[in-house]
Amino acid sequence: MSKKAILLHRKLQGKIFIESKISNLSSKNLQLIYTPGVASVCKEIMKNPESKYTLTSKGNNIAIITDGTRLLGLGNVGANVSLPVMEGKSAIYRAYGKINAFPICLNTTDKKKIVDIVEAIEPMFGAINLEDIESPKVLEIYKELEKRLEIPVFHDDGQGTAIVTLAGLINALKIVKKNLSEIKIIVAGSGSAGYFIGKLLNFAGCKNIIMLDSKGVIYKNRKNNMTKYKREIAKITNPKEKGQLSEVIKNADVFIGVSGIEDLFKLEAIKTMNKNPIVFALTNPYPEINPHDAKKGGAKIVATGSFLYKNTINNAIVFPYLMRSILDLKIKKITMEVLYATSLAVAKTISDQKLSPNNIIPSIENKSLQKNITKSLKNLKS
Amino acid sequence: MSKKAILLHRKLQGKIFIESKISNLSSKNLQLIYTPGVASVCKEIMKNPESKYTLTSKGNNIAIITDGTRLLGLGNVGANVSLPVMEGKSAIYRAYGKINAFPICLNTTDKKKIVDIVEAIEPMFGAINLEDIESPKVLEIYKELEKRLEIPVFHDDGQGTAIVTLAGLINALKIVKKNLSEIKIIVAGSGSAGYFIGKLLNFAGCKNIIMLDSKGVIYKNRKNNMTKYKREIAKITNPKEKGQLSEVIKNADVFIGVSGIEDLFKLEAIKTMNKNPIVFALTNPYPEINPHDAKKGGAKIVATGSFLYKNTINNAIVFPYLMRSILDLKIKKITMEVLYATSLAVAKTISDQKLSPNNIIPSIENKSLQKNITKSLKNLKS
Repeated sequence: MSKKAILLHRKLQGKIFIESKISNLSSKNLQLIYTPGVASVCKEIMKNPESKYTLTSKGNNIAIITDGTRLLGLGNVGANVSLPVMEGKSAIYRAYGKINAFPICLNTTDKKKIVDIVEAIEPMFGAINLEDIESPKVLEIYKELEKRLEIPVFHDDGQGTAIVTLAGLINALKIVKKNLSEIKIIVAGSGSAGYFIGKLLNFAGCKNIIMLDSKGVIYKNRKNNMTKYKREIAKITNPKEKGQLSEVIKNADVFIGVSGIEDLFKLEAIKTMNKNPIVFALTNPYPEINPHDAKKGGAKIVATGSFLYKNTINNAIVFPYLMRSILDLKIKKITMEVLYATSLAVAKTISDQKLSPNNIIPSIENKSLQKNITKSLKNLKS
Repeated sequence: MSKKAILLHRKLQGKIFIESKISNLSSKNLQLIYTPGVASVCKEIMKNPESKYTLTSKGNNIAIITDGTRLLGLGNVGANVSLPVMEGKSAIYRAYGKINAFPICLNTTDKKKIVDIVEAIEPMFGAINLEDIESPKVLEIYKELEKRLEIPVFHDDGQGTAIVTLAGLINALKIVKKNLSEIKIIVAGSGSAGYFIGKLLNFAGCKNIIMLDSKGVIYKNRKNNMTKYKREIAKITNPKEKGQLSEVIKNADVFIGVSGIEDLFKLEAIKTMNKNPIVFALTNPYPEINPHDAKKGGAKIVATGSFLYKNTINNAIVFPYLMRSILDLKIKKITMEVLYATSLAVAKTISDQKLSPNNIIPSIENKSLQKNITKSLKNLKS
């Protein structure tokens, strides 16, 4: 797989390219699209600033912003190393969302500078996608940008992951016939994905979420290793527990891993969970537990974040479609309501008849995803 | 023309789009170009940083940087208004240079911020194109970026204009049988285009260049309205003259207008020039003198910067080809030698047989431009 991937990348020399919409750029056409004709287009935008959305590509352009501080499971590897991932994202945005997504890989990890740069490049874009920036910095950047920009800011690692996770969970619970409001869910990992998963599960009605970081269970008034965002999570999760994963996983119904740690736990732990346990080991490229081991341990339903296995809970299934809808519907803020409505739309893309332990989440190639998400968000807006 | 241009832009909704090189992005392909396969590509770049040029699109990406402070002849109209121009440039880069050029229109006019932003976004690009930034700020930005970046910085308004102007002049002088080292040239306009034209003409052997700004002729030790760059120009131009355009144009052989001022002078002034005067009125979208008036005034050879008339001296004829060669040959600095070699290559693209007063500069569609420029720069490099 590794060799094949490198060979393909060497052959392609880049997965994206920028193309002109005018196939014939003769001198005659240059009069219209460049000089002198373009001056009248500029004057039109001066007269009517909103016409920039109809006279240019702005309304269909997204910037994918990264500083490479938290790339996949590789960690803080820098902007240059992030290029192949961001280009992959661009390719997906085009293939499934018909969106122009351009990677902006930043050679700075300074929070204030990143916010200033994104604010400065706003004119050319219709939305911003934050990507693979370390937590909690990314959450601070996200909140600051939401304040400063006129265009929507999407935090895919957080919001996108939360959407697909909830969608998969809604369908998984249908199979095991359990109710979201009555189950216990473990979320291992309290980075930006964990943060948004915790918030969205709570918004969706889940009452018993236990979230862990590297120090163990997060709870109200815990003293060490806390952030503003973990305190926010502590308020809406974990009514009473403390300790480590091996303890709190007992009697849990669902395990959700967004820890960034390969082989975080052994299959024995799954045996201590409630009947028909659901295991979402979402860390990429190597999950918290190998899906075969998870099944062996007794998991009824298993999902990973990778496209190698069944049940791929990866934001790629959502981001191109969601952003297409956001741009088309001119949604300015990606609120909890937007996330929740999108989760419901993704979940119902698989009919009850087709639902099975190995089919809880639609394929990225499912043609109904776009229609369902747009419909769901349109209802929300009106 | 205006109406037609606006209608075309409204129909297109953007002149460029970003496309995936992989036509089939099935889940199977996603394993290779996204997760988990992409992780091995990232690791390869970590091991061998230079492989970012072969495993991603970096080596074929250009950022077109503007702050909209000096857009065409429209002046300081801001980043949002600049979008259609920058997209036009992108389209030309693709059509003629097969390059991915992405517009970065900046919502800040602060010199230091612009430099910092360009430095921060360097990872994704193989070269930088500065565009429509006011002078002398753009010259300061250019020099600072040349110091800080590993990739080449191209100042198209300055360097590109200087290349096509010298190319056109070399050919025009062949027709009127005059020698560059013996003629008097007026350059009206001392912005960044004037600066590079003055420097390049001097480099090419021209000994009598008179440059003017809004206050009249620039000369050594002039007190008002001077900048570091005008002082640099004063040192290499104008052996002795002072006064205004109407005075110094007497006995000149060549007029080059890069003033940004429509209808800067009347045809009567051309009558005071030396025999067989050459008039390059390059300001866009409206030239310093209408080409018909210039001819009526006695100009032997007339050129403008627009694609509406014969003899288009516009940087668009050069930038896609030059940057293709720069990227292919991995040239790191765009020196005077590079500019001069490119001018010679552009000029000789028109054979002596085909040379005529209405054909002094090749069309952007001339297939030999690329080959000639690359050959010329290759010789320079080896």
